[in-house]
Amino acid sequence: MSVYDYVLTESDFVHKDDLHYPFEERGLQFGDGIYEVIRVYNGKYYLIDEHVERLYRSADAVKLKMPFSKEEMYQQLDALLQKNEIQNDAKVYMQITRGSAPRDHAFPLNVKSNLYAYVQDLSRKMDFMAEGVSAITRPDVRWDWCYIKSLNLLPNVIAKQEASEQGCFEAILHKDGEVTECSSSNVYMVRDGKVYTHPAKENILHGCVRTRMKQFCEDESIPFVEEPFRVEDIQDADELFLTSSTAEVMPIVQVDGKAVEGGQVGSITRKLQHKYEQDAGIKESQSMFSHVKAQ
Amino acid sequence: MSVYDYVLTESDFVHKDDLHYPFEERGLQFGDGIYEVIRVYNGKYYLIDEHVERLYRSADAVKLKMPFSKEEMYQQLDALLQKNEIQNDAKVYMQITRGSAPRDHAFPLNVKSNLYAYVQDLSRKMDFMAEGVSAITRPDVRWDWCYIKSLNLLPNVIAKQEASEQGCFEAILHKDGEVTECSSSNVYMVRDGKVYTHPAKENILHGCVRTRMKQFCEDESIPFVEEPFRVEDIQDADELFLTSSTAEVMPIVQVDGKAVEGGQVGSITRKLQHKYEQDAGIKESQSMFSHVKAQ
Repeated sequence: MSVYDYVLTESDFVHKDDLHYPFEERGLQFGDGIYEVIRVYNGKYYLIDEHVERLYRSADAVKLKMPFSKEEMYQQLDALLQKNEIQNDAKVYMQITRGSAPRDHAFPLNVKSNLYAYVQDLSRKMDFMAEGVSAITRPDVRWDWCYIKSLNLLPNVIAKQEASEQGCFEAILHKDGEVTECSSSNVYMVRDGKVYTHPAKENILHGCVRTRMKQFCEDESIPFVEEPFRVEDIQDADELFLTSSTAEVMPIVQVDGKAVEGGQVGSITRKLQHKYEQDAGIKESQSMFSHVKAQ
Repeated sequence: MSVYDYVLTESDFVHKDDLHYPFEERGLQFGDGIYEVIRVYNGKYYLIDEHVERLYRSADAVKLKMPFSKEEMYQQLDALLQKNEIQNDAKVYMQITRGSAPRDHAFPLNVKSNLYAYVQDLSRKMDFMAEGVSAITRPDVRWDWCYIKSLNLLPNVIAKQEASEQGCFEAILHKDGEVTECSSSNVYMVRDGKVYTHPAKENILHGCVRTRMKQFCEDESIPFVEEPFRVEDIQDADELFLTSSTAEVMPIVQVDGKAVEGGQVGSITRKLQHKYEQDAGIKESQSMFSHVKAQ
């Protein structure tokens, strides 16, 4: 999953080998920046408006001056795919920091933001989406403003690593038992035909795919209940799944070593996966459903 | 306050102009690292043991592999001062990240940590220490594990900036009214001859100077009460002060625009400042007390 050659920066496109940052960079010393990960299918962005809008909301929230207007941002993101001749499934990672300046907590004066965005190939996690993944539960120790997609990701890193060490795909985070989200995805429980998920308050990321889930549920007359569920509710869940730009709609079939509803992927999860493929314009020949065994 | 030429890294000393990091660096993308700021008086480290011990505790807490043994760390930190021929008052900033690797939340395999440490001149804030500073109060939105001195400092940056915009030195942070610490220092209230400060739990930094305050109070038979005080207690405080490696013992004489006890620096704060100078081996000719007007 190597990075394509041309990287977008705040001033120009540069070759990835030429992109370096000084040790006094506010991303590197304070995590003083924001980011987005945008999915690309067959060379085209998916949910680009949602990502760009969220990026600018994050920037506003931390008073970070964006190097581009929104209009320029769209143009530059398009140019990034064109210059790298992207035709396939990929992702774009973009981050903006408050720039390079002598270390001081308060904002530096007259310093321009550093931006970089690069493309990597990304194939869909077909088998995982077909069969489901396992997860662990962990206390959510993150800050109060997780709606800002910031570079302060150490607690997420630690939670994901703990999941990884236990052979799991994700860590489901909870505050005093109340499930917030996962380390890098939103999480949902299905019970009695309703989809439950934490409300889009300041303490969770307002996922772009989460927004689509709400719409898909409305389309299908599935109640979408924005109320937090608790860790102990999971044992009685009919279905459990997570969403993110890279994981799409991912069934969770095991939590802390215990199967969720017999370890089978449920019908509402399948319906939402189907809606996702339609929404993202995925061709039938590339559908994940060819990986789903008859159950 | 420019950086001295020779910067210590995990592998060697390099010239500061030659020290750059690739865009895929875990400090830059996740804030996945830890740091220390160590004070130097007249070319000698102050509280070096406390800082090195805390650094290794932070590393353990986030499972970060240190590039040096503690013994090597002491040697390298000494070499850093020697190579730069430091004779004056200065500070050393040091950070260690989980290294440079393709972006993935979970820890990278077989990647070595990146370390850098550099020296900057730092003169003592004489007038501020003599006359006191002002502060604002702000909600503490940080993560639960602030005892780890991590690079996830965005909430601290935002709080400090808000203080700065109001012409204040610091932001006093509180969780639901209960004062934790400041954006980059510990904070203390004096009432009826007792010093109150938040206990050294996981949600505050265990300041190296804070440890000395406890000792100084014991030496002087001043009760050191490790119980949190509340924002509304400040209006009845006899004295208020903060400590950090760069701010030393700093009186706070105004909070949210209101004077603390008439805006005068109190006697216990003065006593602790005096103890600090003795402890740090500061010569009488360099004492801050020459800046204190007769009150």
